[in-house]
Amino acid sequence: MSSYLLVHVDSDREYLRAPGEELQTDLGVLDVPEDAAHGDVLETHLGEEFHVRRLRGPDLFNHFERTGAPMMPRDIGLVIGHTGAQAGDRVLDAGTGTGVLSGYLGRLGADVTTYEIDPEFAENARENMALGGVSDRVDVRAGDLTEHLDDLAEEESFDLLTLDTADAAAAVERAPDLLVPGGYVAVYTPFVEDARETELAAREVGLGEVETLETIQRELTVDDRGTRPSTAGVGHTGYLLFARVVE
Amino acid sequence: MSSYLLVHVDSDREYLRAPGEELQTDLGVLDVPEDAAHGDVLETHLGEEFHVRRLRGPDLFNHFERTGAPMMPRDIGLVIGHTGAQAGDRVLDAGTGTGVLSGYLGRLGADVTTYEIDPEFAENARENMALGGVSDRVDVRAGDLTEHLDDLAEEESFDLLTLDTADAAAAVERAPDLLVPGGYVAVYTPFVEDARETELAAREVGLGEVETLETIQRELTVDDRGTRPSTAGVGHTGYLLFARVVE
Amino acid sequence: MSSYLLVHVDSDREYLRAPGEELQTDLGVLDVPEDAAHGDVLETHLGEEFHVRRLRGPDLFNHFERTGAPMMPRDIGLVIGHTGAQAGDRVLDAGTGTGVLSGYLGRLGADVTTYEIDPEFAENARENMALGGVSDRVDVRAGDLTEHLDDLAEEESFDLLTLDTADAAAAVERAPDLLVPGGYVAVYTPFVEDARETELAAREVGLGEVETLETIQRELTVDDRGTRPSTAGVGHTGYLLFARVVE
Amino acid sequence: MSSYLLVHVDSDREYLRAPGEELQTDLGVLDVPEDAAHGDVLETHLGEEFHVRRLRGPDLFNHFERTGAPMMPRDIGLVIGHTGAQAGDRVLDAGTGTGVLSGYLGRLGADVTTYEIDPEFAENARENMALGGVSDRVDVRAGDLTEHLDDLAEEESFDLLTLDTADAAAAVERAPDLLVPGGYVAVYTPFVEDARETELAAREVGLGEVETLETIQRELTVDDRGTRPSTAGVGHTGYLLFARVVE
Repeated sequence: MSSYLLVHVDSDREYLRAPGEELQTDLGVLDVPEDAAHGDVLETHLGEEFHVRRLRGPDLFNHFERTGAPMMPRDIGLVIGHTGAQAGDRVLDAGTGTGVLSGYLGRLGADVTTYEIDPEFAENARENMALGGVSDRVDVRAGDLTEHLDDLAEEESFDLLTLDTADAAAAVERAPDLLVPGGYVAVYTPFVEDARETELAAREVGLGEVETLETIQRELTVDDRGTRPSTAGVGHTGYLLFARVVE
Repeated sequence: MSSYLLVHVDSDREYLRAPGEELQTDLGVLDVPEDAAHGDVLETHLGEEFHVRRLRGPDLFNHFERTGAPMMPRDIGLVIGHTGAQAGDRVLDAGTGTGVLSGYLGRLGADVTTYEIDPEFAENARENMALGGVSDRVDVRAGDLTEHLDDLAEEESFDLLTLDTADAAAAVERAPDLLVPGGYVAVYTPFVEDARETELAAREVGLGEVETLETIQRELTVDDRGTRPSTAGVGHTGYLLFARVVE
Repeated sequence: MSSYLLVHVDSDREYLRAPGEELQTDLGVLDVPEDAAHGDVLETHLGEEFHVRRLRGPDLFNHFERTGAPMMPRDIGLVIGHTGAQAGDRVLDAGTGTGVLSGYLGRLGADVTTYEIDPEFAENARENMALGGVSDRVDVRAGDLTEHLDDLAEEESFDLLTLDTADAAAAVERAPDLLVPGGYVAVYTPFVEDARETELAAREVGLGEVETLETIQRELTVDDRGTRPSTAGVGHTGYLLFARVVE
Repeated sequence: MSSYLLVHVDSDREYLRAPGEELQTDLGVLDVPEDAAHGDVLETHLGEEFHVRRLRGPDLFNHFERTGAPMMPRDIGLVIGHTGAQAGDRVLDAGTGTGVLSGYLGRLGADVTTYEIDPEFAENARENMALGGVSDRVDVRAGDLTEHLDDLAEEESFDLLTLDTADAAAAVERAPDLLVPGGYVAVYTPFVEDARETELAAREVGLGEVETLETIQRELTVDDRGTRPSTAGVGHTGYLLFARVVE
């Protein structure tokens, strides 16, 4: 059961709450019903109105409790676009962090097993998965993926391996054992040294269609004087490696 | 029922065929069974082996019959990431073209109504949806979306409006009538003049979180001499506008 | 006679002063000699030491009195690189502004005639040219270049036409009358609409090698964790059109 | 004495020839006079007309005999813009190659000492300097700069140190001994590993204003359908490090 996005239109404030939870703000107390529907209007005890909205990916990014900088919607989208992540996929993920990528993947119908090395981060991610309505699809495991690779290689194969960890190369090396033929690896790495190591690991182990991409995104400024790319600039997030099991 | 990706490993050739179809190549004739499973190995009458693989998004891009340059996996991914397209979404789309975006959206569990102004392109897209196994999720309609906006505004609201047409601004103006609160508009426009017009239309009609993005993607070159961005460069595809119904 | 850059090393403070001027700061009063040489150490009446340095282009950008945002060293460099601005060139310029481009061009030995429409800005630019030691090379004229095109076309031809004005297209159209064969036009325009108009004007009038470039520059971040493009991003400055008289 | 650019307008062909040389092509034989002037029209023995033009920086890039890929006008421009290279500068350069950077610097009035490790490349560069009319300003030395650093540090200081060599870091470390206070170092490095090493060397030795930049340049496409960045893309050339002696 997904949470509701509760929007106070007048003040442009939004809160993410699960069914049955209570929302306490200076606008009053609101008991969130178990069965609210998209479009309902709820009222606090002070008479302030909150609109109920269906949750969407960018809301996860904006409202999940964070344990570090989560992967941005743009990079999550690139992972989905370049790998074709889809309903029914079995995904193996590591470096859960806040869990925004896992949340997105769960909400498009993939089943995700994700490893987070920090137990407190893992617990936080679990709560985020509940908020995101994907607890049944995303299995957050506290632990180091690299210590479980042998066991995982024995299980039913995965369609997709997504990594946002410092030692991604170690898992990339096992991709052929973990993935179905045609399955994809996607690795997010902020630093070029790690990106290089990961690409070399992907090639060494015989993956195909290996490419490491960097993405620069700029906003277009549109005003009365004319149109131009933003003078503010948008900075680097991470390199994305994609590779595929081709044998 | 989705098609199978039939891969001849020795020659690195791939074919997309629906269950029950016949594959005729110089490698021999192959009757594709109705019930092949991912991982099966099929044999032509000449004894050549084809491996059966589950279809993924990038395969749609690579194997769909084209009627023009389809939207690239990277831009499709950005649309999904920035709008949170997800299972259960009702999507209104225009400018079907080859249908790669519709195919991706269908495969992540969204229900898509898509308008293609050219009847032959629409028919081709319909065949692609069958190949992509999303005929039940994607309704390809031959026609001009802008002529059906009044009727569509009367229907149940959509979660997402995706446009890849020359007159996207006309549909953007009706977004508040077509979409649920919190729903997203995404517009793909190659030219800056159209991007400007679309952004102004989105603002004029009161959409929120309006932004037009350009995306530059470069491949990293990794070899013995070192690491550097590719000297080949990657060119412009299109601007992407995102906006949201916030009222 | 060029000014001196007076550097107080201890506090990392710099001042630009002409020979014979007085420097008054909280560090004391300093009479700048007429004949100071690069490397001299001067002392204020409070005994604070200032080192005398030879002025360079980036110092003009950092220390000229500004009347708006001056063209940045990167864009000035691109103008010089793409046009081969060199000693002995006769340059016609418009949109003087702060005069950093004119200062650079003067300091590499070109003779510049530059038009500034705002008389106060022109006077400020004249003072900057004195500070930059290029008063004898740069003739700052208060006025609108487009009103003097007929007269200028009668004069000895220029090697280079550089424009940083809103109505650059009007001057670009006269480039063949103003420039020697092989001479270059360079136009700086922040907005894409103006860049388009300028490019069309350049083509219409028969200029060759016409190209409009946008430049994205990012800083590389190097630290203990690794190397990556800056997360801060660097924004758009302006489009640069280059074209050449080829007939 | 600079060469002439001889332009056959009808066929859009250009040749670079020194005064007194002979031009032999299928258009006939032409004896280039010692005293031709910009704008003169010369005739071959077959009556074909060549126009005499003054040489400019981009002509050096297009017509110099190459010994490898020369630095591009854009990168040369960035070096000039970020360092303020100017008339009267004393420049120490290494990695002469084709000599386009040296040619540019000579033509804006700088005196350049440049080291090229390959004797044949050095000889070719010397011929290019003659063609470029800067033999008196550019001293091409066959040899390895790093072996002459001690001697050079004893000489009169340089204003600018420009490096396009694989072992740039070794010379960067000596920059404080080689340059005047306020003098600049500029290093061109295609690979990120070298860029990192160079930046660390610059910081280690106490240089100030250290920055390593990457530059992405795209052409704007202007046609009847609209305006957009080129779909062709422009690739990576090199990172540029800039640093300054600040003590």
